[in-house]
Amino acid sequence: MRFEVLILGNSSATPMYERHPSSQVLNFNEQLFLIDCGEGTQMQLFRYGIKSNKISHIFISHLHGDHYLGLVGLLSSMNLSGRKNELHLYAPLALKEILYMQFKHSDTVLRYDLIFHSTNAEEPGIILQTKMLTVTTFPLKHRIPTTGFRFDEGKRSASLIRERIEKLKIPTVVLSQLKRGIDYTDTNGKLYKASELTLPAPRSRSYAYCSDTRAFESYVSVIRDVDLLYHETTFLHEMVERAKETFHSTSLEAAEVALQVGASKLLMGHYSARYRDLTPLLTEAKSKFSDAQLSEEGKWYLV
Amino acid sequence: MRFEVLILGNSSATPMYERHPSSQVLNFNEQLFLIDCGEGTQMQLFRYGIKSNKISHIFISHLHGDHYLGLVGLLSSMNLSGRKNELHLYAPLALKEILYMQFKHSDTVLRYDLIFHSTNAEEPGIILQTKMLTVTTFPLKHRIPTTGFRFDEGKRSASLIRERIEKLKIPTVVLSQLKRGIDYTDTNGKLYKASELTLPAPRSRSYAYCSDTRAFESYVSVIRDVDLLYHETTFLHEMVERAKETFHSTSLEAAEVALQVGASKLLMGHYSARYRDLTPLLTEAKSKFSDAQLSEEGKWYLV
Repeated sequence: MRFEVLILGNSSATPMYERHPSSQVLNFNEQLFLIDCGEGTQMQLFRYGIKSNKISHIFISHLHGDHYLGLVGLLSSMNLSGRKNELHLYAPLALKEILYMQFKHSDTVLRYDLIFHSTNAEEPGIILQTKMLTVTTFPLKHRIPTTGFRFDEGKRSASLIRERIEKLKIPTVVLSQLKRGIDYTDTNGKLYKASELTLPAPRSRSYAYCSDTRAFESYVSVIRDVDLLYHETTFLHEMVERAKETFHSTSLEAAEVALQVGASKLLMGHYSARYRDLTPLLTEAKSKFSDAQLSEEGKWYLV
Repeated sequence: MRFEVLILGNSSATPMYERHPSSQVLNFNEQLFLIDCGEGTQMQLFRYGIKSNKISHIFISHLHGDHYLGLVGLLSSMNLSGRKNELHLYAPLALKEILYMQFKHSDTVLRYDLIFHSTNAEEPGIILQTKMLTVTTFPLKHRIPTTGFRFDEGKRSASLIRERIEKLKIPTVVLSQLKRGIDYTDTNGKLYKASELTLPAPRSRSYAYCSDTRAFESYVSVIRDVDLLYHETTFLHEMVERAKETFHSTSLEAAEVALQVGASKLLMGHYSARYRDLTPLLTEAKSKFSDAQLSEEGKWYLV
């Protein structure tokens, strides 16, 4: 089952060197979630072959322009291309006013349902829950109200050992019960133990998005044991005072967060325009946390 | 003296095939004017090496997203990069409210003067006048209030015939009077006729921007005899009914406008996403007006 993230933009506020403002697509079992939507997101989606009408949910971390300015254009283009399926938007409440003021002046009437869910930057909370997935939002520490997002896969089922199933001619109709650990007895009374026909269920995976934020605030408890942690690394640590002033994180700090929460991997991003070459940011992160990597636009990363 | 336009975006509402929403930079004697500012304009400026802090005036035709959604990002990036020089913005009044609502929620305080001039979509008017240049705005015919812009170069001075000037050892201090047509008499009483030392002043040049609009409305009288006419050509003429419904122009209609107003050249743009290959649009325009050309992003066009 797919669980991976495509980076559309990893630049901080001033986009440079063909790096775009923040945006990414999370593919969870062919359901597409957009996380942040900086200016140019609709063009990036087109460039990387993502059909925007397949996006079902959009999550906006905060109202700095580099995280949401692509939204009006994307929502309008979805309208022009005939979208009919509903779209859920999770964002700070003020975004609703910003969107509808612009729709009003451009005489835009959406022909699909845009369902607005306002996020709470005061405390963590579950904002979406299905059998397959839970999405939690939590406060980050930035200049304006900002939230992170954590995506937790639901309990996974065991996988069948196909060769044994075929050899023993187990009927197809009982396969789902075997996957759930229930033994099967055939019409002759012969017992087939689920444990002998399946491999144990894989561990459920999780992804967290932390941008923009100072490092090491209360959110750390919410992202514990996450598999893939996307954490902003705006500056090198030599700029830590600037990071504090602007409520951003350094590469070293993000790596320390990854280490402390027991993340499996750290994906870096939200690079300051002062860095054309990003290698020093990576070197710094790896000095503390070896499974750090630089996010690159247009690349998919497995959760 | 430079007078040329760089195309940053020439797509209609839905950007496709690496074409961007409307935006262009007019360089008039090293003074930079931005005309429309679709999403992604700041990235396009960077791509083509235009320093955004050198832009002194921005003109927005109307409040459809593909003509202004790049503005908040651009104005914010100018702020982050330390712009101090004032910026004049000419646009429909509602844009002011849209901008300041977004500045408020992102806690943005501009550290340069943004001087807002509201445009009037009811009647033509001069909105900027210097010794060198006059800018006129005029109503277009679109779904929402929209204006075009015409840029007229002021009276040009005659150019000196350098070889004669040097041969006759005319003093430098009198050159500007000669260029203005005033004869010069030296201390020995010898007369030097300006007409014999200069070439006649070149004709003043003009540029007009008409997007978005139905063709053949009252604006035609305002753009008479323009040198370079940028006119939207959203559709092929086989789609003329769609053009009427959406208040756009066909390629054939734009060519007819160019012919009727006596434009020297027609520059086409605002292409519908339905056309990957633009050749048929060009062929259609040329069938009526031979000096038509397709605008291409990243290219400069002489006025």
